[in-house]
Amino acid sequence: MLPESLQHLIDQFKRLPGIGGKSAQRLAFHVLRTPREDAERLCEAIRLVKDRVTYCTICSNITDADPCLICADQSRDRTSICVVEEPQNVHVIEKTRGFRGTYHVLMGAISPLAGVGPDDLKIKDLLVRIGAGGVEEIILATNPTVEGEATAIYLARLLKPLGPRVTRIAMGIPVGSDIEYADDLTMTRAMEGRREL
Amino acid sequence: MLPESLQHLIDQFKRLPGIGGKSAQRLAFHVLRTPREDAERLCEAIRLVKDRVTYCTICSNITDADPCLICADQSRDRTSICVVEEPQNVHVIEKTRGFRGTYHVLMGAISPLAGVGPDDLKIKDLLVRIGAGGVEEIILATNPTVEGEATAIYLARLLKPLGPRVTRIAMGIPVGSDIEYADDLTMTRAMEGRREL
Repeated sequence: MLPESLQHLIDQFKRLPGIGGKSAQRLAFHVLRTPREDAERLCEAIRLVKDRVTYCTICSNITDADPCLICADQSRDRTSICVVEEPQNVHVIEKTRGFRGTYHVLMGAISPLAGVGPDDLKIKDLLVRIGAGGVEEIILATNPTVEGEATAIYLARLLKPLGPRVTRIAMGIPVGSDIEYADDLTMTRAMEGRREL
Repeated sequence: MLPESLQHLIDQFKRLPGIGGKSAQRLAFHVLRTPREDAERLCEAIRLVKDRVTYCTICSNITDADPCLICADQSRDRTSICVVEEPQNVHVIEKTRGFRGTYHVLMGAISPLAGVGPDDLKIKDLLVRIGAGGVEEIILATNPTVEGEATAIYLARLLKPLGPRVTRIAMGIPVGSDIEYADDLTMTRAMEGRREL
């Protein structure tokens, strides 16, 4: 019973991640009520992202300029490279303001089920960076999932013979949570990773 | 640290209802990854809704054609008009397939705090419809909120002298829920509205 164009917009919103039927309907009705300029502004912002945002040719992070702000920043520590799966992971680590090295975005993780092998990731670019010399530590910050772990193990084997120290971020109980709710695997990793106080 | 255009898109998404910071970020990164055609399709759908969807000159429901499909449908019962606040309310009632009358969308509810008075609602159009004759029942299906109730009471006083029967939808315990969790007011309304079995 909805106008065809409105139903179509609901269908388009439904395709976005985390947007179900009810949310899609609410968003579509919001667009309907909103002034035309606001709707145009959203479209313009979408188009701008598709036009402007590219990937850094050094680290594959998303950027408006190439190389990206981090790779171009002379104050960053180039002896340390933090390897992550996706561009948004860089953002999470940057927000902590605790890491002053550089990044390398793999653009995914090894996943035989999804048909993603090492050749589909930005591993060659990483080898080139290490080959150029001066890299002392590679921090593997891939996700603590089956795919992320497989990728970390693969990279560790590949990179260790080249010289740099290869480390993996710690897995354990999240800060502020309750041990009572920790799953077996997380608890096991927390015990294995225990440190002297 | 995010590219400016991406941050701008996140800000635009954040303005949508029910979209917080995290969701906005997820949506923006999704747009980044998605093929250009998909992003264009969403923009096109937004534009189409702003271009095509208008309001029915009879009932103020949203529509691609004027009068709307319901008002134009000769099989609908014109003796009964269901009054709702917003176009999306029509959709909710239509989905039940239990009502065969017509609708009238007020485009809001009386709310002195928000500066919305009776003159800001589509009440004049409703009076014209009733004045044309043949209307036997007005069902007030405004929300069971302070504003919706005030609007219902205002309309009841205004419309009863004109002839049609004026009714209000039932308030009570939602089907499938537990009386244990009902608030005082809902429980009071459920008791008041009790019917012979």
